[in-house]
Amino acid sequence: MAIFVALRSPELEVLGLTTTFGNVHTALATRNALHLLEAVGRTDIPVAEGSHVTIKKATKLRIASFVHGSDGLGNQDFPPPATKPIDQSAAAFLVEQANLYPGQVTIVALGPLTNLALAVELDPSFPKKIGQIIILGGAYSVNGNVNPAAEANIFGDPDAADIVFTCGADILAVGLNVTHQVVLTDADREKLEQCDSKYARYLCKIMGIYFDYHKDAYFIKGVYLHDPTTVIAAVNPSLLTYTEGVVRVQTVGITKGLTVFDNTKKRYGEITAWSGMPTVKVAVTVDAPAVVELMMQRLMTDD
Amino acid sequence: MAIFVALRSPELEVLGLTTTFGNVHTALATRNALHLLEAVGRTDIPVAEGSHVTIKKATKLRIASFVHGSDGLGNQDFPPPATKPIDQSAAAFLVEQANLYPGQVTIVALGPLTNLALAVELDPSFPKKIGQIIILGGAYSVNGNVNPAAEANIFGDPDAADIVFTCGADILAVGLNVTHQVVLTDADREKLEQCDSKYARYLCKIMGIYFDYHKDAYFIKGVYLHDPTTVIAAVNPSLLTYTEGVVRVQTVGITKGLTVFDNTKKRYGEITAWSGMPTVKVAVTVDAPAVVELMMQRLMTDD
Repeated sequence: MAIFVALRSPELEVLGLTTTFGNVHTALATRNALHLLEAVGRTDIPVAEGSHVTIKKATKLRIASFVHGSDGLGNQDFPPPATKPIDQSAAAFLVEQANLYPGQVTIVALGPLTNLALAVELDPSFPKKIGQIIILGGAYSVNGNVNPAAEANIFGDPDAADIVFTCGADILAVGLNVTHQVVLTDADREKLEQCDSKYARYLCKIMGIYFDYHKDAYFIKGVYLHDPTTVIAAVNPSLLTYTEGVVRVQTVGITKGLTVFDNTKKRYGEITAWSGMPTVKVAVTVDAPAVVELMMQRLMTDD
Repeated sequence: MAIFVALRSPELEVLGLTTTFGNVHTALATRNALHLLEAVGRTDIPVAEGSHVTIKKATKLRIASFVHGSDGLGNQDFPPPATKPIDQSAAAFLVEQANLYPGQVTIVALGPLTNLALAVELDPSFPKKIGQIIILGGAYSVNGNVNPAAEANIFGDPDAADIVFTCGADILAVGLNVTHQVVLTDADREKLEQCDSKYARYLCKIMGIYFDYHKDAYFIKGVYLHDPTTVIAAVNPSLLTYTEGVVRVQTVGITKGLTVFDNTKKRYGEITAWSGMPTVKVAVTVDAPAVVELMMQRLMTDD
């Protein structure tokens, strides 16, 4: 849904898709990215495959297959794509694009932040060359969705997330406190189902599992629009407001993956892990009806 | 201030004071407790000395001497007390009192929770025998005061805090989200200064450093009434509201001492550190003007 919104938004030029583990393993995510571009006739857009392991090389990953199905696309048994990813890692692709268009590239990061942390390691000037990084990640002053402490994307690679949040780039973090306000209701789904655009038709095929998951886990009729909201933060930034401060990520223990945002003006008695670190923007409000409307508008028309 | 409010509240019978490290080391806290009781003629109340080290026997303690002065009493150079603590540890005293008056004893815990965790270890039935434990500790959905993650009392012994929060006792936690709403202003201080009660006179002598600390650290004219608010939660529980859920404490890493309160109804996909643990009450609102008024009323009159 998020990728379709990006493709359908004239405000954005999609330079490429990079893949990561999260809802599925990275290899399958790459296949799905290629498949999606093929399904809507946009095979001109390159796909760069991301890391198969965390920044610390952990191979035991949390794969939330229960959210979108074991194929990550609503268990629809789609045929394999005819296209292939480019011969460049996601991190190398990100660094290359930042160097090609310094200050102009926006990364919309919708999964664990391994590829971005690798890009920072690959090129220390990457944080200053990239335009903005909009991160779907974290839970600011609210509970997580993996457990009460942690949000899934940050939990997927907390070490990478801490590197990215403190790298000095222009970062906007969109967390659960914001995305849990943006719900696609059953009525919205109905509208999509009655629509004939290729985007709406495709999405209606795959989103049953996502609706079932929300009924089961959150007892709501509707689904959270985490990823589309984050793309829309790039399309129309005025639909969100934010405050600024330092975010650090807990990397061990029962709150592994927790994002702690220093949102006070307090002068602490001692040096802390937040002291002197670069600040980021953290979204605090969202015009949810406007986000849903804009998303529906983009998906319910064809090119 | 909190101890004086307790002594001056007919709703409470003060069975004893137990001491801990935090603003000063435990030995000095014991001396100060004895001194305070002497200063107001209440040497009938026993003082039981608490642990000098954390539950894991760490001797490197965080002592926040900058909050109330290096003597913990506004650097007033008070004479040593003539009285002595009882020949029983704080933990043993707590267990004894819980056994003497099952279900009737309230502990107002105003420091690190080492003594309470030791009491739980000493007597596994302690959590069910104690009436209620009102804990000044934690920062729920807000930043801490030691650093952005942790509140001072929990930070002082996070392992002990996690034992206590999950021990199954009837617990009410009063955190910074509540106590930062309750401020003694300069105008209130003026009123205390013009009052002739022995309690007001004593407090006005010692509280300069605490006011200076707030000006310096929080840029406010006034002081947070953390501890008196917690005593008043015992005196008049109707001045606070709370919600219930599981609280776990992070014990390692940059967010050591962080309290994470599971406040959602979400069904997580996996077993978490919060799953199936006993719930506690966490204060969410406070009638701050009423708390300040009640406190002032108790302190501005003599026995």
